[in-house]
Amino acid sequence: MSDETVIVRGNGTIFLGGPPLVKAATGEEVSAEELGGADVHSRTSGVTDHYALNDEHALAICRSIVSHLNRRKYVPWDIRPVIEPRYDNNDLLGIVPADNRRSYDVREVIARLVDGSDFHEFKALYGTTLVCGFARLMGFPVGIIANNGILFSESALKATHFIELCVQRQTPLIFLQNITGFMVGRQYENGGIAKDGAKMVMAVANAAVPKFTVIMGGSFGAGNYGMCGRAYSPHQLWMWPNARISVMGGQQAATVLATVRKEGLAARGKSMSQEEEASFMQPILDKYEEEGNPYYSTARLWDDGIIDPRDTRTVLGLGIAAALNAPMPETPFGVFRM
Amino acid sequence: MSDETVIVRGNGTIFLGGPPLVKAATGEEVSAEELGGADVHSRTSGVTDHYALNDEHALAICRSIVSHLNRRKYVPWDIRPVIEPRYDNNDLLGIVPADNRRSYDVREVIARLVDGSDFHEFKALYGTTLVCGFARLMGFPVGIIANNGILFSESALKATHFIELCVQRQTPLIFLQNITGFMVGRQYENGGIAKDGAKMVMAVANAAVPKFTVIMGGSFGAGNYGMCGRAYSPHQLWMWPNARISVMGGQQAATVLATVRKEGLAARGKSMSQEEEASFMQPILDKYEEEGNPYYSTARLWDDGIIDPRDTRTVLGLGIAAALNAPMPETPFGVFRM
Amino acid sequence: MSDETVIVRGNGTIFLGGPPLVKAATGEEVSAEELGGADVHSRTSGVTDHYALNDEHALAICRSIVSHLNRRKYVPWDIRPVIEPRYDNNDLLGIVPADNRRSYDVREVIARLVDGSDFHEFKALYGTTLVCGFARLMGFPVGIIANNGILFSESALKATHFIELCVQRQTPLIFLQNITGFMVGRQYENGGIAKDGAKMVMAVANAAVPKFTVIMGGSFGAGNYGMCGRAYSPHQLWMWPNARISVMGGQQAATVLATVRKEGLAARGKSMSQEEEASFMQPILDKYEEEGNPYYSTARLWDDGIIDPRDTRTVLGLGIAAALNAPMPETPFGVFRM
Amino acid sequence: MSDETVIVRGNGTIFLGGPPLVKAATGEEVSAEELGGADVHSRTSGVTDHYALNDEHALAICRSIVSHLNRRKYVPWDIRPVIEPRYDNNDLLGIVPADNRRSYDVREVIARLVDGSDFHEFKALYGTTLVCGFARLMGFPVGIIANNGILFSESALKATHFIELCVQRQTPLIFLQNITGFMVGRQYENGGIAKDGAKMVMAVANAAVPKFTVIMGGSFGAGNYGMCGRAYSPHQLWMWPNARISVMGGQQAATVLATVRKEGLAARGKSMSQEEEASFMQPILDKYEEEGNPYYSTARLWDDGIIDPRDTRTVLGLGIAAALNAPMPETPFGVFRM
Amino acid sequence: MSDETVIVRGNGTIFLGGPPLVKAATGEEVSAEELGGADVHSRTSGVTDHYALNDEHALAICRSIVSHLNRRKYVPWDIRPVIEPRYDNNDLLGIVPADNRRSYDVREVIARLVDGSDFHEFKALYGTTLVCGFARLMGFPVGIIANNGILFSESALKATHFIELCVQRQTPLIFLQNITGFMVGRQYENGGIAKDGAKMVMAVANAAVPKFTVIMGGSFGAGNYGMCGRAYSPHQLWMWPNARISVMGGQQAATVLATVRKEGLAARGKSMSQEEEASFMQPILDKYEEEGNPYYSTARLWDDGIIDPRDTRTVLGLGIAAALNAPMPETPFGVFRM
Amino acid sequence: MSDETVIVRGNGTIFLGGPPLVKAATGEEVSAEELGGADVHSRTSGVTDHYALNDEHALAICRSIVSHLNRRKYVPWDIRPVIEPRYDNNDLLGIVPADNRRSYDVREVIARLVDGSDFHEFKALYGTTLVCGFARLMGFPVGIIANNGILFSESALKATHFIELCVQRQTPLIFLQNITGFMVGRQYENGGIAKDGAKMVMAVANAAVPKFTVIMGGSFGAGNYGMCGRAYSPHQLWMWPNARISVMGGQQAATVLATVRKEGLAARGKSMSQEEEASFMQPILDKYEEEGNPYYSTARLWDDGIIDPRDTRTVLGLGIAAALNAPMPETPFGVFRM
Repeated sequence: MSDETVIVRGNGTIFLGGPPLVKAATGEEVSAEELGGADVHSRTSGVTDHYALNDEHALAICRSIVSHLNRRKYVPWDIRPVIEPRYDNNDLLGIVPADNRRSYDVREVIARLVDGSDFHEFKALYGTTLVCGFARLMGFPVGIIANNGILFSESALKATHFIELCVQRQTPLIFLQNITGFMVGRQYENGGIAKDGAKMVMAVANAAVPKFTVIMGGSFGAGNYGMCGRAYSPHQLWMWPNARISVMGGQQAATVLATVRKEGLAARGKSMSQEEEASFMQPILDKYEEEGNPYYSTARLWDDGIIDPRDTRTVLGLGIAAALNAPMPETPFGVFRM
Repeated sequence: MSDETVIVRGNGTIFLGGPPLVKAATGEEVSAEELGGADVHSRTSGVTDHYALNDEHALAICRSIVSHLNRRKYVPWDIRPVIEPRYDNNDLLGIVPADNRRSYDVREVIARLVDGSDFHEFKALYGTTLVCGFARLMGFPVGIIANNGILFSESALKATHFIELCVQRQTPLIFLQNITGFMVGRQYENGGIAKDGAKMVMAVANAAVPKFTVIMGGSFGAGNYGMCGRAYSPHQLWMWPNARISVMGGQQAATVLATVRKEGLAARGKSMSQEEEASFMQPILDKYEEEGNPYYSTARLWDDGIIDPRDTRTVLGLGIAAALNAPMPETPFGVFRM
Repeated sequence: MSDETVIVRGNGTIFLGGPPLVKAATGEEVSAEELGGADVHSRTSGVTDHYALNDEHALAICRSIVSHLNRRKYVPWDIRPVIEPRYDNNDLLGIVPADNRRSYDVREVIARLVDGSDFHEFKALYGTTLVCGFARLMGFPVGIIANNGILFSESALKATHFIELCVQRQTPLIFLQNITGFMVGRQYENGGIAKDGAKMVMAVANAAVPKFTVIMGGSFGAGNYGMCGRAYSPHQLWMWPNARISVMGGQQAATVLATVRKEGLAARGKSMSQEEEASFMQPILDKYEEEGNPYYSTARLWDDGIIDPRDTRTVLGLGIAAALNAPMPETPFGVFRM
Repeated sequence: MSDETVIVRGNGTIFLGGPPLVKAATGEEVSAEELGGADVHSRTSGVTDHYALNDEHALAICRSIVSHLNRRKYVPWDIRPVIEPRYDNNDLLGIVPADNRRSYDVREVIARLVDGSDFHEFKALYGTTLVCGFARLMGFPVGIIANNGILFSESALKATHFIELCVQRQTPLIFLQNITGFMVGRQYENGGIAKDGAKMVMAVANAAVPKFTVIMGGSFGAGNYGMCGRAYSPHQLWMWPNARISVMGGQQAATVLATVRKEGLAARGKSMSQEEEASFMQPILDKYEEEGNPYYSTARLWDDGIIDPRDTRTVLGLGIAAALNAPMPETPFGVFRM
Repeated sequence: MSDETVIVRGNGTIFLGGPPLVKAATGEEVSAEELGGADVHSRTSGVTDHYALNDEHALAICRSIVSHLNRRKYVPWDIRPVIEPRYDNNDLLGIVPADNRRSYDVREVIARLVDGSDFHEFKALYGTTLVCGFARLMGFPVGIIANNGILFSESALKATHFIELCVQRQTPLIFLQNITGFMVGRQYENGGIAKDGAKMVMAVANAAVPKFTVIMGGSFGAGNYGMCGRAYSPHQLWMWPNARISVMGGQQAATVLATVRKEGLAARGKSMSQEEEASFMQPILDKYEEEGNPYYSTARLWDDGIIDPRDTRTVLGLGIAAALNAPMPETPFGVFRM
Repeated sequence: MSDETVIVRGNGTIFLGGPPLVKAATGEEVSAEELGGADVHSRTSGVTDHYALNDEHALAICRSIVSHLNRRKYVPWDIRPVIEPRYDNNDLLGIVPADNRRSYDVREVIARLVDGSDFHEFKALYGTTLVCGFARLMGFPVGIIANNGILFSESALKATHFIELCVQRQTPLIFLQNITGFMVGRQYENGGIAKDGAKMVMAVANAAVPKFTVIMGGSFGAGNYGMCGRAYSPHQLWMWPNARISVMGGQQAATVLATVRKEGLAARGKSMSQEEEASFMQPILDKYEEEGNPYYSTARLWDDGIIDPRDTRTVLGLGIAAALNAPMPETPFGVFRM
């Protein structure tokens, strides 16, 4: 169904039914090459457009095809000269802790990603568990949204407002994800965190600018949605080797399930010893450890790859350049201050 | 994320983390109702918009919501008065044979579906294994594409041309599917059936008019694609109880696999007795019989249901009326005579 | 190249080269029917879509094709109930004089064309040699522009302004043409009649509403342009039997040419007697009389036909109804008071 | 500058400079009629298009002009048959208290305005000081926003969400205004009432549907903005005779100013007796009473008139019908749940 | 309501009701800083987005905000290199006379404004009291309309035609205004100067290109409208120190009023001595002198400032560059030769 | 009717009726100069806009007008640096045979036209009598379609597919025409060559990209349509001196007509001797030789000129550059593989 088709001699074949099926259906004996090989389709049937002598030749033809597509990128803003960050890339290996539960200031990471380490922060003092701001990366304007703790109503409102600004300015969004989820509990539910979180998710889902997600720590629960996880179709989604991704943290999951189990036993007048509890919880912990590992998910193509943290800047720059090959549609919302 | 939300008292609850998770995370004990019940969300958090006393009340509220959507259908053509077919509906039970391999004229079916049994056939004498034509159904204009045998290049070209006409006139398409596939063999491959079939599939896939598929017999192989099978997103897809759906017919599949096996044995100087061959083929035949059964696929929601053939007219009429609630986008191709 | 093609058995044939050409080119002898008759193209080549047994059958198929085009008219205004004119149609035969040089009030004609003889005249006292106004005809709104003498700057400006109003309101235009041209002479040229006439012609040429022209008397010179003659593509152009059309009147043409001739002779010291002048002029007068006759031009398809003046109302009503089958494009000018 | 111009004989004159100016500038003496009367402009200059004999004639010409504009209303939804309210119109005189400070349930008013007294309330239990809901009025769909107390953050969020719904459905908005303003004080400021109020004002200001405001009680301060006061350009704004409009209530204004005065005196070691305070406040109270009176503002054309409360339904129905004569532009925001 | 908000510590406060109002309403005592200062709104309520330490910091933040708007100018034509005028700027001080009633050739001014003193004049010999033509200014294409005497029908038609050309080419318009008005008197009124003047005003009012007005002498009466005075919303309007602006000249106004007065007296059989007339006229002359002074109007912000004539070129160049930041809408008229 | 008008003193005149007509109509005697010369129209009537002293002056004014049109080209792709062909231009004189009936490989011509002699051929092995491919010419991307023999169904399908690709990429099309027509005869008619040829013609006719045709040999019959002959409105159509153009070849036409004549004679029992046949055919051959000559058609403006084959590259490059001055409309078809 493609616009132009290349076939390799002695290798490629195309047919609706292959030789065995032909034989079963009509008794005719015919080789695959005679039935639908490169010569048949390039000379007789016209099903293919380019005849390649071998794989190298086919690749050369493909490059020639692309060079004649005559496309031009749509660039809605001025691209500035590239400025290297003022802080050393290699610091990233020390800044990010091996243990995801240890916290650090995500601005240390941003300073090593953006041009001139120059970051125009938005609402720096409000909703402080989420860092938002404008910067340049490889000369392209970007809006950055980075976790710096758990998400509260305030953080979600700040993110929504900031995404509205980026969309209005057709500015690409970068999500630096390290998130255990939204805050829970009666106070927060009654305060309407469900609807504030929904605003953030609505903004992320509908923002029609190029979006890029880097999971640089934990990625748990609904936080994954708000921070543009796979289901929200970022243009690209990358993982650092220390990332962990699951519906919740392993320890948390094991505790919840043990609580449920103990309440069930209690209802029947039984109980559980500490060892029983530990041995109930261990397989859960193990399963979360294994399946939350980035190599587990990348092996299933749930992301676009695991990268060395020091390559993040390069990878994002290439991603934005590539995204400009596609048209940027209208986003159907304006700017509501949140 | 919906525009308006209804919650039922004592039944519905909404929260990001339920009571066990809250307890695990913060130690707080709280009931589901207190945490995120109808009263909390309708009175305090504003997460819900309508408070229903029970399920019946909730349904009444939903109807009221819909009645205030103030929508209007887009109807690009005049709707004519409904005329009953001149032939009796009940005849369908006799016309369609129990054995899918027995053939009959699909015009007998069409005459029992369309208004006044009035059918404006297109290219009646060409590509005769596919019947195409315009008619009215419950007053709506329709284009009908119905199998009357195996698909050849000519049939595919005729269908492509006909779909172009329907698209240009924004006329809904009805596919009456009873198909064992495209013709195979050297003559046909060399004649370019692959590219002609691709034209038909391209037209079906891109036609932006409402599409409806009724599987009223076999649905095998690439024929399923050309006749707007599930993967081509018809608005609705219905099955008759006698339908059979699989990648190829069971007998055909078994023969192909047996041939492959026998050639493998022959290469190693061995052979297979007739009984061995029969017992090799039987489980294949059984599997195809079971999984090709419409109840197997409808149970997996691969279609929209199994219908009594006599209800087909009513079901399609309702489907077209429903389809008019959605906008009809532009189709990006014109009319190339094929 | 049409969307659907009908061919009549034993009558229609289609080929790129007919039997003699085939024979000349390749020596093959073949009958027209075998080469490209109805059976070949409907059954084998697929070049035709419908096979008709005879001409009556073909016409029935065409009607069926049209009935399945599923078109809907675009009507930008409300259509009112039809009201007959209050004056008798037959009076037209007496109102219009046999001699085109005799004048009469064109409002007498309008009163016999429009619904209820109700005419909303525009600028009745200004540029009085042209009558402009709004009315209804067979329930459709129309703007009428009718000659009532020679065209002056004022008449042209009035027409331009009026056409702008009609265009803004998407109202069809009717031109009742009986015109000997624009006023000439130093006073008028110096007064800029060329640019004022050009405004009228520009407005007529670009007005993207349905336009209808009835030539009900003389149609001479540039007046024909301003009053939407053939070159300005009215949707329909009708003539009354008494109409005369030429680049100028015969008498006027003969006199101009005789003057030129006499000046030529005078320059060589010669002259022309009255008889010589008369015999010089007679063939010119004859030629104008013959070629200015409506039967001369209608025979060459320069108009859409000659009609009985009493049919004018019916013909225009059908014309407007037909024009609504086509989309009405935007006109690229606004309303400048002239 | 109008499309068509009417002038009355012996009455209307048009000139750039009148007779005195002409005399001063050039010494020429000329009467107004000769300089620019109906005859001059209808016969000679062409500045006017229609010549009326007197005022009645002029009005008849205007009606004729309008009848030939050939406009058609844009109606985006189905109009239902009109149903009278189930409650008596005359009750309104008893329901609304003479004293604006006494409260009552605004639903009592709505029940006497809308078709069948049928009101689909939105978020009935949340933000209860503002009542929002869908209904039909004279067969047209409407969204109603009515004050039922002071505005809180919750009320403003509810209104914003509701306006988004109406805009998405192109439904006209009716504001029933009886408002003393937004809630003030530390708790509410810190809770962000400024930004929530801004959301409501942003939604009201940009909602591109027809908007109608009825001031049926007090209209004070920023509440007037949120409830679509004059500055927010409702299509029509009506007042009831009991309405009062000012930047704040008179009593409130007098108290604030007295407080400021007393603090000033205190800073200089002085004070104010109760009588001094009363006589300081009285002129303020008087001024607010006089200028807050609806007859004061209506006399200055700040609204569209004072109506009998029992006429409200009729007035709004006519207003919506009139609004449909104008195109309804796109609104540049979507639906964010608030 | 802005997209991003900056607040200065210890200086900015935002609240719906200030401390005195809060006290009057609820009795609560609270400082302005606690109620709505920078810390409250940047840390707690989220009403502001950027926290500035002082005014300089606030300005730096604003510049940073603008630098991240990512806008790009729309430039519909090629910009050429800047060429200085060939005539000396300083000559302007001598060319323009101190007395507005003395005339001079405005081309002397144009030669000192435009690139290379290169001026493509349009209709140089027609309607000579108005000079129209194309040029470049600081590399941008411009259309210039400059008064060179009183306005006649011909001048107005010429201006209309020229504006149509500029609009079609999206070329900015510069109005050099030095105008006592349109010609008055019977001859001109009867000649239709009212409608010709209206054409010019219609063109000026609707021309959707950037417009710039420089009042470099008198600006009286309807001439001010035709030459794009304030009411016609030029992008910028500048005055030279010698400019005078009023509805008519002072002398003219005094004479008209004295005439009216004398006619009133005459009607009652009285008269006025020359001294009485002089003392009647003096306060009028004085009032016109004072209020017609550019410092009077500039002090009321009726223009954008008074400039040194030698700065005109620079000011206009900056103005055009600034205008390109806004989109240029479609103008709803084409090119009618006038 | 033009936007700006130039008139030359003592040379140009404009009037609706010239002096003789004026005299005939009104008896007035007036010179052409007084009636409508440059002074009248530039100074008094305003019909002209620019007054030129002589023809050179008029040309200079025209250039100045164009320099102020402020147009900008629309270029949908990147333009690359120009690279000369690697083969010598002068070879063309030897490659193309004097006798049109002798064949040669058209790729020899292409190699001397395109940048770097770099040609990306499409379907090189299929439908080999037509050569299609992408290249660059003077830095612009082009699609080339060149005859290499008679047209078959396969050639027509290949051309259709290729045109679809060019249209989708807004790439200009170059047709190198050397064509005796489509293949005729029973086999080909029955194979549907009529509909395949129609596809090619439909694609050529509707392709809304700039099209250029070079007739570099024979141009006969329907082949002329498919290869974008004059009736299909190429932007430019050039001929080489050796070209021959007619509805069919002279020899072929003479043979067909002789066959018809002989059959007619045979029906009446007569025959024709060889000499009679030769003398019957000779005048036909002569007529075709004369009227098929490029000088015959170019003299009638049926093409844009005859060029030296070595200028072809330059001429096409200028043509594409010129075509970019016009907007490129949408083409209403997509990519159907053929």
